[in-house]
Amino acid sequence: MAVELITRYAEEFLAEGALESISGEAEQAGALVADGEGEGSAFLGWRDLPCGYDRGEFDDILRTARKIIADTDVLIVIGVGGSYLGARAVVEFVHSQHYNALPKKTPDIYFAGNSLSPDALNELLTLCDGKRVSLIVISKSGTTTEPAIAFRIFRKYMLERYTPQEAAGRIYITTDREKGTLRRLAVQEGYKTFVVPEDIGGRYSVLTAVGLLPIAAAGVDICALMQGAVDACAAYREPCFEANPCLRYAALRNLFYRTGKSVEMFVSYEPSFAMMNEWLKQLFGESEGKDGKGLFPASAIYSTDNHSLGQFVQEGSPILFETVVLFDKPKTDIVMGVEEDDGDELNYLAGVEMSQINYKAFQGTVLAHNTGKVPNVVLRLDRKDEYNLGWLIYFFEKACAVSGYILGVNPFDQPGVEQYKKNMFALLGKPGYEASKRELEKKLGL
Amino acid sequence: MAVELITRYAEEFLAEGALESISGEAEQAGALVADGEGEGSAFLGWRDLPCGYDRGEFDDILRTARKIIADTDVLIVIGVGGSYLGARAVVEFVHSQHYNALPKKTPDIYFAGNSLSPDALNELLTLCDGKRVSLIVISKSGTTTEPAIAFRIFRKYMLERYTPQEAAGRIYITTDREKGTLRRLAVQEGYKTFVVPEDIGGRYSVLTAVGLLPIAAAGVDICALMQGAVDACAAYREPCFEANPCLRYAALRNLFYRTGKSVEMFVSYEPSFAMMNEWLKQLFGESEGKDGKGLFPASAIYSTDNHSLGQFVQEGSPILFETVVLFDKPKTDIVMGVEEDDGDELNYLAGVEMSQINYKAFQGTVLAHNTGKVPNVVLRLDRKDEYNLGWLIYFFEKACAVSGYILGVNPFDQPGVEQYKKNMFALLGKPGYEASKRELEKKLGL
Repeated sequence: MAVELITRYAEEFLAEGALESISGEAEQAGALVADGEGEGSAFLGWRDLPCGYDRGEFDDILRTARKIIADTDVLIVIGVGGSYLGARAVVEFVHSQHYNALPKKTPDIYFAGNSLSPDALNELLTLCDGKRVSLIVISKSGTTTEPAIAFRIFRKYMLERYTPQEAAGRIYITTDREKGTLRRLAVQEGYKTFVVPEDIGGRYSVLTAVGLLPIAAAGVDICALMQGAVDACAAYREPCFEANPCLRYAALRNLFYRTGKSVEMFVSYEPSFAMMNEWLKQLFGESEGKDGKGLFPASAIYSTDNHSLGQFVQEGSPILFETVVLFDKPKTDIVMGVEEDDGDELNYLAGVEMSQINYKAFQGTVLAHNTGKVPNVVLRLDRKDEYNLGWLIYFFEKACAVSGYILGVNPFDQPGVEQYKKNMFALLGKPGYEASKRELEKKLGL
Repeated sequence: MAVELITRYAEEFLAEGALESISGEAEQAGALVADGEGEGSAFLGWRDLPCGYDRGEFDDILRTARKIIADTDVLIVIGVGGSYLGARAVVEFVHSQHYNALPKKTPDIYFAGNSLSPDALNELLTLCDGKRVSLIVISKSGTTTEPAIAFRIFRKYMLERYTPQEAAGRIYITTDREKGTLRRLAVQEGYKTFVVPEDIGGRYSVLTAVGLLPIAAAGVDICALMQGAVDACAAYREPCFEANPCLRYAALRNLFYRTGKSVEMFVSYEPSFAMMNEWLKQLFGESEGKDGKGLFPASAIYSTDNHSLGQFVQEGSPILFETVVLFDKPKTDIVMGVEEDDGDELNYLAGVEMSQINYKAFQGTVLAHNTGKVPNVVLRLDRKDEYNLGWLIYFFEKACAVSGYILGVNPFDQPGVEQYKKNMFALLGKPGYEASKRELEKKLGL
């Protein structure tokens, strides 16, 4: 089993028998996911995706990625939320946060259309100067404001740089199978397209074309990534509390929530996991943060953040628990040497691998935080590679769905995201929002 | 006044008269900072720093930065916590998160020694290949494990690349004025040094040599940065509730804390503010997270995170309020054009500047979150430049100190950071920690 769930640093903070007492709820919640009988079950497409995905499309993704790698220096990936975080998280975890700066045979990748900052967008245009550029645009409807604006600007840019036919050959669209403005545009202009499955929400979509095309274009081994998810899918199929760590992790989270913890902090000891933390924050926050409920998802990279958030965790308000994702083997290592004069007093580490020092930092931290009465759930994986990551992604998706059902919410909708969109449309004067515009401007004192 | 404190989206969530009722406490806390009579007042050096800093050292920083810019392609800045976050935050805010990738006349800058990941360190070594490299090492004691390990490895690297004399001319040390391993090493090897002031803790040190040298080496105008802080220092001197927004912001934070909010989320609409958010998380989390108290500091970049954390903010557990930092004018802008067929349905925005769209996103979000009963404190600044940033940094430092005193903690110590360090030393077998090693290993089940 690729993910080992370690509970020894968490269980002492639970009442005797607490885990057993919630096991029935967890199994019921697991059964809702397994049977598709729960709320939002029209969005369970991610559940069996790894085992049943469209091999034809998968091969097409691989072929298209090879074309992009061959003819592109800078790949701009336009998308927001679930159409953005998963791909960026996987690329940065497998390669590095410094992926673009490191020597490589694959294109630089920048993510656009996830904010409305003109400075951020202008920078990306600068970074394209003189480079061979391709675009991947990801949006189910095509009308989400952030990516739509970015695509309008980048499409114009492409037509200034290339002939219409050349530009069309460098623009890839991942959208709804049939409808929407992006689908229409793609048909009209002859862009190559991929599909956002109807039954998979954005935050569960990283293993569909949404995530896989940019990930493959970064030279990440998506076959190994999917294989990890396939094996996890098989391992976590049965809603049996004892045998299924997804259920046990979901149960632990809910138990801590019920005993007054309001924040779950996702922790890693690898800086390259930082965007995976962001992906986790969307997955859990958007799935559970509704009906006035849910754990607030936060994140930290240790040991960096021992020197910033560590003080709060150790001695601050007792409102959080930590979920630590740990990788046994790094991709590379460094053995500490000896120095003759030992001026920095580090010779006691001579011969020790840096990965071991990092592991001792984890052990030291988990014991310190336990002393500070902060429970730690630990998820331990073998190595930092595509297979383990695919497994981990599926583990979290399944655990999140189960956890949401234990909490008593629909883990697959996000009704609260609409309010800001509607307000923004009205304030921007979008046709059809006139009445609400006047009301909002009054609230703003305009 | 460079920072305008807007409370209209927050006050409706307070009881009538709440602000007045806390004003006396805020003024007392402000007086503790002004008079230096509070706990931890040995670390008040940041308070008058902008007005009274060492001009000789400042000029030396400017000269040294010019040398680094002239003879360096890659600058490695080694430091952790407060010796790292401030510099990185300012460089990324003023330039960009893509600073290293953008065309420029200043060196690439990478931050090392803030984690224990061998992969992260090996990557930085790769990025130095064939480049002219300089190091800035920042550590008060010189014995903090993360930067000490990174410096040992990079010092070895420099001696492989350069003669001892050349290497010495490319290594800069910011440390204690007199004592510690780094000071000894610098004297012995003839490294150029700068001083970590004795009376300023790490998280308040960005406007000392700790932050200023790497910031200046990135071509940031540190004169304007300091001028902003100088003017803020003068503007916020008096502990008068009505006239001093630092006190009013500190009061608001404490009021929300007392009414059951446990999380403060720092929000910006500029992706380049992301590391400033991290700096804020250390400043407030480490200053206030003690004695079982304090607001948990979190952060978001909108509108990106509207599509991830937004659902939780709008409809999840009612445990948070937001502090939004808003900049009126971007560095650059983009005017939306017209497209003949309006296939993406964005023509209603034709002629609108993207910065205006971003501003409407703010307005739409603040009203949406108010509807969701989430208070928003807004800090509005004129433009994204060094002057405004220097002002903002001072504003937050002062507000944080005042807020800590209102909360009843010492805002200048961080006793909780020691536990993990001690545990790690013991587990690594550092001489002197033998007894504790056995005890900890027992807890780990070893």
